[in-house]
Amino acid sequence: MKKNILFFILNKFSDWESTYVSTFISVLGQDKYEIKTVSITKEPIKTIGGFTVLPDYDIKSVPYEFEALILVGGMSWRTEEAKLVKPLIEHAIRNKKILGAICDASVFIGAMGILNNVKHTSNDINDLKAFALESYTNEENYLMVPAVNDNNIITANGTATLEFAKEVLLALKDIPKETILGWYDFYKKGCYEVAMPQL
Amino acid sequence: MKKNILFFILNKFSDWESTYVSTFISVLGQDKYEIKTVSITKEPIKTIGGFTVLPDYDIKSVPYEFEALILVGGMSWRTEEAKLVKPLIEHAIRNKKILGAICDASVFIGAMGILNNVKHTSNDINDLKAFALESYTNEENYLMVPAVNDNNIITANGTATLEFAKEVLLALKDIPKETILGWYDFYKKGCYEVAMPQL
Repeated sequence: MKKNILFFILNKFSDWESTYVSTFISVLGQDKYEIKTVSITKEPIKTIGGFTVLPDYDIKSVPYEFEALILVGGMSWRTEEAKLVKPLIEHAIRNKKILGAICDASVFIGAMGILNNVKHTSNDINDLKAFALESYTNEENYLMVPAVNDNNIITANGTATLEFAKEVLLALKDIPKETILGWYDFYKKGCYEVAMPQL
Repeated sequence: MKKNILFFILNKFSDWESTYVSTFISVLGQDKYEIKTVSITKEPIKTIGGFTVLPDYDIKSVPYEFEALILVGGMSWRTEEAKLVKPLIEHAIRNKKILGAICDASVFIGAMGILNNVKHTSNDINDLKAFALESYTNEENYLMVPAVNDNNIITANGTATLEFAKEVLLALKDIPKETILGWYDFYKKGCYEVAMPQL
């Protein structure tokens, strides 16, 4: 049976932040993983770019059996509604599942205290501190790098979509590292710099 | 009244290829443009990455008034179904609308003969020739560059998502060039190299 990779998407999520992760897993891990999207309800939601996405699950029906939970950034992580995602995130942490948070989703988990014991990054340290206040106490482990994985908690800024994808894929541990790096390189440098990697 | 920017999406379209175009237009051109998606039917379709997208229009209900038609690459441009998109593309050409085609969508319009009078690019010249056969006669104007705009026909390879977005935005002509280049640079180089551009 395939393992679920859950993508949590809220209204006005950032179109570009999930696409390489979902595609790389779908293609390179097609025998092992199933991509599923989750939102608060199963109503269609809009991306920032204006596409309409239909979630596979709502917060009540989402399976608590998954290999990774990816929180996609966007405009809604500072709303009341977003707080409903916390139990799912806490479940991921408790069960040592991979937790990915890009862009403003990293600020959200920072405010949950989840970044206090790991190396991490976000869009901007000052913004993280201003939103998380005393819930965030780990400025010394904030790294000025595109993406970080520490103990299966993966954070990235909103411009680091490919680096985020690379870290999530590496964390899954069963797709060969050189395959992942080949795909990363191909999309990072473009098809005139790097030959198309084989499947 | 806002002008329509149409994104044609077929089943198994490439998640990552449309996201910067749609986001940049939605944010930088929010007063002027409306993003709309179109597919063959209004049934939900799947991206390569496994997300489910609900098209705004089907091929029968799509408005023929639009500023740009963006053909998103993917796995279905070589199917019978894709041929149903031709009248919409021909309308765009006849009325000198912006036509964008990335990845395999550029091969599709190459096979329609649309690239025979313009400078253009695609994923691979040999693949384009092999699919388009005698309908494509313009190898001397195939450019080995990420994205090209010639006479409002914009083509790009599937790794050149940001360059494609830049060319489409520039073609719209009413968003300041320096704003577009600032956004391109921010996402191309990342937030640690380039300061976040102002809106």
